[in-house]
Amino acid sequence: MKIVVDAFGGDFAPLEIVSGAVKALQENEKLNVVLVGDKDKITEILQSLVFLSDRLEIVHAPDVVTMDDVPTVAIRTKKTSSIVVAYDYLKQNEDAVALVSAGSTGATLTGAVLKLGRIKNISRPALAPIMPTLNDKNVMLLDCGANADCKAENLLHFGIMGNEYMKAMGVKKPRIALLNIGTEEEKGSEMIKEAHQLLKNSRLNFVGNIEARDVLRGNVDVVVSDGFSGNVCLKTIEGTAEILFGELRDITHSSFKAKMGALLLKKKLYGLKKKYDYRKVGGAPLLGINKIVIKCHGNSKAESVACAINQAWKLANNKLVEKVAKAVEKDEE
Amino acid sequence: MKIVVDAFGGDFAPLEIVSGAVKALQENEKLNVVLVGDKDKITEILQSLVFLSDRLEIVHAPDVVTMDDVPTVAIRTKKTSSIVVAYDYLKQNEDAVALVSAGSTGATLTGAVLKLGRIKNISRPALAPIMPTLNDKNVMLLDCGANADCKAENLLHFGIMGNEYMKAMGVKKPRIALLNIGTEEEKGSEMIKEAHQLLKNSRLNFVGNIEARDVLRGNVDVVVSDGFSGNVCLKTIEGTAEILFGELRDITHSSFKAKMGALLLKKKLYGLKKKYDYRKVGGAPLLGINKIVIKCHGNSKAESVACAINQAWKLANNKLVEKVAKAVEKDEE
Repeated sequence: MKIVVDAFGGDFAPLEIVSGAVKALQENEKLNVVLVGDKDKITEILQSLVFLSDRLEIVHAPDVVTMDDVPTVAIRTKKTSSIVVAYDYLKQNEDAVALVSAGSTGATLTGAVLKLGRIKNISRPALAPIMPTLNDKNVMLLDCGANADCKAENLLHFGIMGNEYMKAMGVKKPRIALLNIGTEEEKGSEMIKEAHQLLKNSRLNFVGNIEARDVLRGNVDVVVSDGFSGNVCLKTIEGTAEILFGELRDITHSSFKAKMGALLLKKKLYGLKKKYDYRKVGGAPLLGINKIVIKCHGNSKAESVACAINQAWKLANNKLVEKVAKAVEKDEE
Repeated sequence: MKIVVDAFGGDFAPLEIVSGAVKALQENEKLNVVLVGDKDKITEILQSLVFLSDRLEIVHAPDVVTMDDVPTVAIRTKKTSSIVVAYDYLKQNEDAVALVSAGSTGATLTGAVLKLGRIKNISRPALAPIMPTLNDKNVMLLDCGANADCKAENLLHFGIMGNEYMKAMGVKKPRIALLNIGTEEEKGSEMIKEAHQLLKNSRLNFVGNIEARDVLRGNVDVVVSDGFSGNVCLKTIEGTAEILFGELRDITHSSFKAKMGALLLKKKLYGLKKKYDYRKVGGAPLLGINKIVIKCHGNSKAESVACAINQAWKLANNKLVEKVAKAVEKDEE
């Protein structure tokens, strides 16, 4: 069971990606990794890390998809780019079960659909980031931007996929909620009201609507949303936290007195930042695809890449793709 | 020119509402206020505040619309409630120009449309909260929940109304942006892409798409959004800030060392909380209605009620309603 890693996607590629893969291999003895990218550069980094393992394979890809590339064009034309070669490898090798990439979200999404294909009956794959919450549990928010226009049925599928993901990660009877502008059943747009009914009548442990203000409280495991609102929610969380932590940093540097105060609080403030650091939970899975795909944040460093590789391994090991396929099929009956 | 105040709407009504009205009257000599609610209770509070002014009028209303009432039903049946009597007063008295209420959002919205009516050519009034930002400027986000389903044309009207509001508050050439899941023109749902084109081809100073993460940066004056996403954005900001400030409070109480540190940072931390306190900017206007309507937060205290009354006065004084009507008419030509 091999995890394929796009070694040249991400702000800190290839060094941090390769280092992350090495870290994951050291942590997990059952893991096999395929690093895709410029072979010479990868070899050079591995030598500098003094790492050698027969569980690590390198597949050469001289080209790279950048942030300036149009994803749909790049996937079709940049045939020797690390992400395209990685997807081709996944397509051709049955024992390759998952992709991990910190590169362009658009290219990762497009490549996944074009090269690996969707799970039967699922018309819209969803990007599903996982966030740490107030009570130290994780919450998954999906979709977060893969689908700007959604139908109610897509949201039911998001719920089913989120449910299977959380079960694969060890959560028993995941609590599924619907992102809405009020907790009452009759709230929301027409599409959301329809999605509410579908979720309510499904086999899921549907706990009703959740307001955006409560997403980070950790009282539910999966928040289902259309891709537009989910993206707005995710980016608002990121933006608000960034601004407040930034203000806090400025305050603690603003005077001698403040610096002294900050010194006394340093450990606790650092703990707070660490608590809400979404990188520690790995990457955002792209659910609904025929193999496991994990999209890491562009600024991922070795630690979060290693997390994402282990996450991919765990999901593949727990047969997430097969379970999603079965759950959706059941639902279609 | 009278501002009508629902004295019995809000968590801290009537005391804080009446006190807020008194504060506003003391601050602004040109202001006239009509307090609507139980006359005896209002008189009692005024006596305890030792306040008497011929610029203050009381209109009796024995009943109250509560959070448990269904707004549409309450507006039609609770004919002697403070909010209904307030709207009736506005309808019948030409010199009554604005309503301020901290009561039920639903009742305030429903009453506004049913009793005062919409401005000609505007099919969807919008709830438009104003928030303090990183660079100390205010940003308006509209719609924030009055319309869960929107058409592109509604969003153009939101832009026009936000523009007139900001001009009435003294902002020259307000920068209008569209809330979207990417900054590129081709991003977003079909409706949002259509709205982008309408805004781009309008007379507005349209600066393009804005991502949710940048709303609080203060680089634009008005963020246009459908009511669903706007509500998600607003409540995510509130929820994230609440959680982080809560964590900060817990941290600063967690040990003797932390308490000492917090003591040294106290003034700055308080300043930070104050900086982002949206109550200081007054209430959220309901734009598109034939008179000025300001909805205060349910937990408003005297200071924010006074702010909202002054805000209403300023808007009425600058003829916001007439200007919106004219701007939309121009746009229809």
